[in-house]
Amino acid sequence: MITGKNYIGNTLSAKGEKTYKTFNPKLNTENNTLFVEATNHEINQAAQLATEAFKEYSQFSDVKKAKFLKAIAEEILALGDNLIQTYCSESGLPEGRAMGERGRTIGQLNGFAAHLEEGSWVEATIDTAQPERTPFPKSDIRKMLVPLGPVVVFGASNFPLAFSTAGGDTAAALASGCPVIVKSHPMHAGTGELVASAVIKAAERTGIPNGVFSNVNSSGIEVGQTLVQHPNVKAVGFTGSIRGGRALLDLAAKREEPIPVFAEMGSVNPVVILPEALKNRADAVAKTYAGSITLGSGQFCTNPGLILGVKSEGLTQFINTLSSQIKTIEPSCMLHPNIANAYNKNKEKALSQKGITVTAKYDENVAANFSKQTLTTVSGATFLENTTLHQEVFGPYSIVVQCENIEQLETLILKLEGQLTATVIADNNEASNYPKIISALQNRVGRIIFNGVPTGVEVCASMMHGGPYPSSTDSRFTAVGVDSIKRWVRPFSYQDWPNHLLPDALKNENPLGVYRIIDGLKTTNKI
Amino acid sequence: MITGKNYIGNTLSAKGEKTYKTFNPKLNTENNTLFVEATNHEINQAAQLATEAFKEYSQFSDVKKAKFLKAIAEEILALGDNLIQTYCSESGLPEGRAMGERGRTIGQLNGFAAHLEEGSWVEATIDTAQPERTPFPKSDIRKMLVPLGPVVVFGASNFPLAFSTAGGDTAAALASGCPVIVKSHPMHAGTGELVASAVIKAAERTGIPNGVFSNVNSSGIEVGQTLVQHPNVKAVGFTGSIRGGRALLDLAAKREEPIPVFAEMGSVNPVVILPEALKNRADAVAKTYAGSITLGSGQFCTNPGLILGVKSEGLTQFINTLSSQIKTIEPSCMLHPNIANAYNKNKEKALSQKGITVTAKYDENVAANFSKQTLTTVSGATFLENTTLHQEVFGPYSIVVQCENIEQLETLILKLEGQLTATVIADNNEASNYPKIISALQNRVGRIIFNGVPTGVEVCASMMHGGPYPSSTDSRFTAVGVDSIKRWVRPFSYQDWPNHLLPDALKNENPLGVYRIIDGLKTTNKI
Repeated sequence: MITGKNYIGNTLSAKGEKTYKTFNPKLNTENNTLFVEATNHEINQAAQLATEAFKEYSQFSDVKKAKFLKAIAEEILALGDNLIQTYCSESGLPEGRAMGERGRTIGQLNGFAAHLEEGSWVEATIDTAQPERTPFPKSDIRKMLVPLGPVVVFGASNFPLAFSTAGGDTAAALASGCPVIVKSHPMHAGTGELVASAVIKAAERTGIPNGVFSNVNSSGIEVGQTLVQHPNVKAVGFTGSIRGGRALLDLAAKREEPIPVFAEMGSVNPVVILPEALKNRADAVAKTYAGSITLGSGQFCTNPGLILGVKSEGLTQFINTLSSQIKTIEPSCMLHPNIANAYNKNKEKALSQKGITVTAKYDENVAANFSKQTLTTVSGATFLENTTLHQEVFGPYSIVVQCENIEQLETLILKLEGQLTATVIADNNEASNYPKIISALQNRVGRIIFNGVPTGVEVCASMMHGGPYPSSTDSRFTAVGVDSIKRWVRPFSYQDWPNHLLPDALKNENPLGVYRIIDGLKTTNKI
Repeated sequence: MITGKNYIGNTLSAKGEKTYKTFNPKLNTENNTLFVEATNHEINQAAQLATEAFKEYSQFSDVKKAKFLKAIAEEILALGDNLIQTYCSESGLPEGRAMGERGRTIGQLNGFAAHLEEGSWVEATIDTAQPERTPFPKSDIRKMLVPLGPVVVFGASNFPLAFSTAGGDTAAALASGCPVIVKSHPMHAGTGELVASAVIKAAERTGIPNGVFSNVNSSGIEVGQTLVQHPNVKAVGFTGSIRGGRALLDLAAKREEPIPVFAEMGSVNPVVILPEALKNRADAVAKTYAGSITLGSGQFCTNPGLILGVKSEGLTQFINTLSSQIKTIEPSCMLHPNIANAYNKNKEKALSQKGITVTAKYDENVAANFSKQTLTTVSGATFLENTTLHQEVFGPYSIVVQCENIEQLETLILKLEGQLTATVIADNNEASNYPKIISALQNRVGRIIFNGVPTGVEVCASMMHGGPYPSSTDSRFTAVGVDSIKRWVRPFSYQDWPNHLLPDALKNENPLGVYRIIDGLKTTNKI
C-alpha cells in the first residue's frame, strides 16, 4: 500500500502540511494518493540518523553489505504487479519498459553485490616496512578505499526505477558503505515509496542500522536544496537537467565544507556520418536512426539529437529517408505534462531560429501528453554561429547539420559542448582517414561508438556514462557500471598499524583473498 | 643562468612591466635577479600552446612520456650546484635539505616513469561482445583512463622542488598526458626558472611538442586567478594555505565550465596519546615529538600542531619533558619574512585566547626570520568552545589539550575539522580498547599513524596525502605517490571500435602486456 509518507530511517513520517499528487499522463488525470512533503525537522532527523548509522555501517564487511543489496533486489521483485502498475500510472511508460527497467535495477543491485563479494574494488595497496633503510627507515603503509559519509540521491524523471530510489546511484553508495537519503522524484512518488519500502524491509531483515536509508518526498526544489546544504551530507548524486544539476553544484560549492556533486545532465550525443558511409548506405543508417531517435519518446540522456555530415547526395538521401521513416512512427506518451510542455516549448524555440528547415514533423493530432517527433536540418555555418541550436530538446527531436566540408565538420566538433557520447558511422577502413575528426570527438565525450546507436547504455564494468561538462559535472566518474562506486569513496592510509586492528582487506593473511598491490606487484598472496 | 623571464612554451619571454625579486631570509636581504611577471597576453599564449600541444601529447605512448620524465630528472641533476645554491638563497633552508628534496623530486619523476613503463595504471577494462544475447545483442565495450587537458600547477612555498615546478603535481600531470602551466612561486622564482629550463631541455631532446610545459612568474594573485579562469585550463593543482586554496576552488566553481581544483591546504595533524602510553613512556614520546614539531621550522603540512590526551600525571610529565626539550632546540631560519611574520602573528593570536598556558617558549633573541618555537596547553572544555584554537599556526607551534576524560576526547575528535593525518600513541594492545576514538579519528583524516610521527611523507603507492576538507579540497585523491596521477584523468569508453584503431592498452593482442579486467577477470592475457 502506498501511504504518501516519507521514510525517515525505518519510520513512516508525515509531519508536513504541503501535499501533492502524481499524474497519469496516458489518462491525462491525477492519481489518487496524497504525498506529504518532508519538513525541515524530518530532513534533519534523516541526516542525523544517517550520520549515526554511518559509524556502524561504514565498518560492515563487504559480504554483509552484499546480503543487504541482494535482499533489496528480492524485496523489489516481491512488490510484484503493484510496482509495475504504479510505475506505468505515474510515467506513461508501457509495461514492457517497466519490467525491463525493474530487471535492470535488480541486475544493478546484484551486480554490486557480486562486486563486493569479490572484494578487490577497495584497491588495497601495501608497501611493507624497511626498518634497515638509510638514511631513514621506511614505515609499513597500507591504503584502501573507504566510504565518504551520508549521500543524497535525487530520483530521475526518466528512469523511475533504474536511476531513482534504489537505482544505480543508491546501489553504488550503499555498496560503498555510505548511508543514502533519497530525494524522491515528485512525478513518481508512489513508485518511489514502494521501492523505499522494499529497501527498508531488506534493511530490517539483514541487520542494517536504522538511518542507512531514508526516502523524502517533495514537489518543489526546497527539500533538495536543504539536503545539499546539510552539513551531515558528504556527497550528492543527481540525474536531470543542466539547470537543475548546475544549481545543486553551485549550492554544494558554496558550503563551508564543499562536497562533490555527481550530476548527469544534458547531452545531444553527436553522430558523425562519414562520406563513404553516406554514399553507400544512407538508407540503412537512416532506418536505424529513426528508431534510436524516437525510442522511449526520445526521453533518454543518450538520445541522438545531433547528426553531422558533409553536404552530398548521400546526406540528402539520408535526410529524406530518415524524415519519411520518422513520420510513420507512432507517437508515444511522454512522462508528464510538464515534460511534454517543455518538449513543445524547446522545440518551438529551436524551430524559430534562422536557417532551420523542418524535414519531418508528425502532423496528425495526438492525445494529450503524446509526442510529435520532429526532424530539422541546418547548414554548418548557421549551426556554428548559433549556440541555441546546440541545446538539447529533451524528447523525439533531432537536427541534421550539413557541413560544407570536412574542415568545417572538424571546427564544429571542436566547438561542441561536452557530451556523454559520440557516434561515428563509417565504411570499411574509412575511419582511419579522419584522425582529426575522431580525436576532436574524443576530447568532447565520455564514450565513442562505432557504427551503432548511442541509446541503450549497457550496465557493465567497461561502461563510461558521463562526460565533459555540461553532460556531467565531473567527467572523472561514471554513473553506470560497478566503477560508479568510486564516486562515494576516498583512499585511506594506515601507517605502521597493528595487523589485528587493520581491516580484513589489508591484513597480512589476506583473509578475503582479494587482489592487492604489494610492494608494486599485483597479487592475491599473503604477506 | 637565471634570466627572470617566463617560459611560454619553449620560449623565454618578458613582455610585462611588473617586476619583483626573491629574498634571502638568512642574510635578510633581497637577491639580485629581477623577475618579470607574465602578462595576460603571455598567459593566453601559454594556454593556447598547451591546448594545441594536448592534441598530440595526449596520444603519446606511455614509453615516450616516460622518456620525457626521466630526461627531466637528468636535466635537473645536470643543473648541479647552481640549483642547490639558488634553492638555499631563496628559502633559508640548509643545503642538506636542498639535496634531499632534489633527490625526492628526481625520485618522483623516475617513479612516474616506471609507473608508465609498467602501463597498467590506465585501468583497461574490457567487456567482449555477445552478438547472440537476447533480447538485445551485447556490444564490445573497452574503457581506459585518458588525460583531462591542460593543467595549472601552483608552486608551493615550503617545497621549492618536490611540490613546485617539476614536483609531484607536475610529474603526475605530465605522466597522465596533460600539458602543464606552472604558476611559479614568487619566493623561489629563481629555483623555479632553473627547473623550468631543465624541463624545456628535456622536452626538446625527447621530441615533446612546444607548449606541453610553460612556467609563468607572478608576485601577486592576479596571474593565478587568470590561469584558473582560463577556458583552456581543465584542472588545477595547489599546495598552500586554506584561504588561498579556497579562493581558487571558488573561482573554478564559478566558471562556465567548472573544473576540479586539488588544493592541499592546512592541517594540525592531531596526535592522540592514550592513557597507558602516557603512564609508561611519557618521556620517550615527548623527546620524539620535540623533533617532529620543530623539524624544518615546523613548516610542513604534516607538522603535529595538536596533541590530545586525558589529564593525568603522565600527561603532565609529557608536557614538562616536551617543554624542556623544545626550549633547547636551536631556532632555524624560516622560508621568508612573510612566513616568519605570519607565524608570529598567528602565534600571538593563539596565545591571546582565554585559557591558554604557555609551557615552553624559546626566549633568547634570534636573528631576523628565525623561528621561536612555542608549546602551549589548554583544557578540553576550552578547546571545544573556541575554534580559533583549532587553526593551524604554520611554523614550530603546538598545543597540548588536556581532556577531562575519554568521552570528552571522543567528543573533541568528532568536532575536529578535516585533517591530513592523525597519530595514535598507544601501549601494547591498548588501542583495541578505544574503538570509538579510532573510528572518530578515521572519519576526520586521510592517514592514520601508529606510534610514530606524521612528518616524513613517504613517496609510495600506498600513501594517502590528502584528507577531508579543509585539509584538502577533494579527499578522494592523494597528492603524493603514483596514484596522484588519478587527479588528471577521466575514464573513456570505446564501443564496438575497430581493433586497429584502439589505443594499444585496449587492443586484442595486449601489445603492452598490461593488466586488464576482461569480462570481470584480472589478466594480462590476449583476447
